[in-house]
Amino acid sequence: MVDCGEGAQIQLRRTNLSFAKLGHIFITHLHGDHCFGLIGLISTFGLMGRTATLHIHAPEDMRLMLKTQLDLFFNYDIGYQVEFHAVDTTRHEVVYEDRSLQVESIPLNHRMPCCGYLFREKPGLPHIRRDMIDFYQIPISQINNIKAGADWVTPDGEVIKNERLTTPADPPRTYAYCSDTCYMPTLHKQIMGVNTLYHEATYANDKKDNARKYYHSTAEEAAMVARDAHVGQLILGHYSARYEDETILLREAEAIFPNVKLSDERLVFDV
Amino acid sequence: MVDCGEGAQIQLRRTNLSFAKLGHIFITHLHGDHCFGLIGLISTFGLMGRTATLHIHAPEDMRLMLKTQLDLFFNYDIGYQVEFHAVDTTRHEVVYEDRSLQVESIPLNHRMPCCGYLFREKPGLPHIRRDMIDFYQIPISQINNIKAGADWVTPDGEVIKNERLTTPADPPRTYAYCSDTCYMPTLHKQIMGVNTLYHEATYANDKKDNARKYYHSTAEEAAMVARDAHVGQLILGHYSARYEDETILLREAEAIFPNVKLSDERLVFDV
Repeated sequence: MVDCGEGAQIQLRRTNLSFAKLGHIFITHLHGDHCFGLIGLISTFGLMGRTATLHIHAPEDMRLMLKTQLDLFFNYDIGYQVEFHAVDTTRHEVVYEDRSLQVESIPLNHRMPCCGYLFREKPGLPHIRRDMIDFYQIPISQINNIKAGADWVTPDGEVIKNERLTTPADPPRTYAYCSDTCYMPTLHKQIMGVNTLYHEATYANDKKDNARKYYHSTAEEAAMVARDAHVGQLILGHYSARYEDETILLREAEAIFPNVKLSDERLVFDV
Repeated sequence: MVDCGEGAQIQLRRTNLSFAKLGHIFITHLHGDHCFGLIGLISTFGLMGRTATLHIHAPEDMRLMLKTQLDLFFNYDIGYQVEFHAVDTTRHEVVYEDRSLQVESIPLNHRMPCCGYLFREKPGLPHIRRDMIDFYQIPISQINNIKAGADWVTPDGEVIKNERLTTPADPPRTYAYCSDTCYMPTLHKQIMGVNTLYHEATYANDKKDNARKYYHSTAEEAAMVARDAHVGQLILGHYSARYEDETILLREAEAIFPNVKLSDERLVFDV
């Protein structure tokens, strides 16, 4: 999960997503709309009987906040561990890694320490061609070897090349989340070629002054980052409440970059 | 406002209630469903340009919580003052008073320091009888004197008694809020004769064991308090999520006390 504003647990409950599968939460900065829901989510996990450790990755100040809340509200007794990992918002570096995923921090420029996150899926294994396995009557025990690249030698001694037994792995996906930030002309270098970029678009061009003043971006600026980074698609969000209809943000972004989508509550995007 | 769970600001925005008129928030205890929405509300007030002081009445531990949140999230800079008033949850005493209202703490018995609140409206002034004012052609300047109890002397010297010029003031209203608590056999003594009692009713009789274990009440127990305190009406709430239909709570309470209502989100009751 990236960020956790007030009511996030309620929104999460409205989806079909499993609470149990959520192991890591990445917080960009300590403005309320990005973190006020964290303590409620942590509390509810406890009430639901969670036992797995929950990892919070966030700017250093969040550590004291969490500690105070866990102490005062729960006397640290929520039935599972909450582990805090401080993120240096000034550096672009790997902040988390496991077998299938790597997460990097993306320094952003907002009114307080703030960073985005870049999720890089690791290359997967090739897909087994079921038809070829059946044809050569290859035993199940050999599947992992073939996935790992092995050829197959038939009882007659014929060598079947690995590329005939498999189809290539899906290309690894990359997703960059950049909110909140003013326009950063060099941001694209850190997120070059990602499949999906979420970039804040608080204002349209009519409120460029506000964007400067509050360290936010316009939709056009978000699109400039997407264009310069050659991303697959751009998802906009974090709209100012002044826009009852966000179509203007979409239009202004599309004038710069073609593949733009407007995020909305509980909308699901394929990355 | 009494208590402020996560998302309270969203619910408040869905009503027609004025944010500006909210000056005092009374927190019963530090469980998340009663206070996790406080910092979000405080934050939003700031964004809306509030300047009036906001008063928080709560158990002592809330002071450090608030201080930490205001410091870390806002560097104390929200544009208005938040003033904290510690409430001693072990004592039944006046915790707030102004010209029209007095608020008393009601010690409750829960898993942590917890108290309810009793709101006593102060006696109002009698109503002016418009028809009599017109009949005797009494000038507007005299209205406040008559409201304060003065008779009227006509130009002919006839004395018109105050009770002919006014109708009695509305009886002052009293409202007691009691959540969360296990059944307290002597609670009724502190809230004798209130117009409206809100009492938690987490469980029906089928889960009396849970009520004991978690220091909550059954609907029947809430009704026993209402009956013993001779209240005007009882409002139930704080239902366990196990009851998809709360009618069973209503029925079990009604078997003990006749005038029971089920609270629900954004439902409005006349006290």
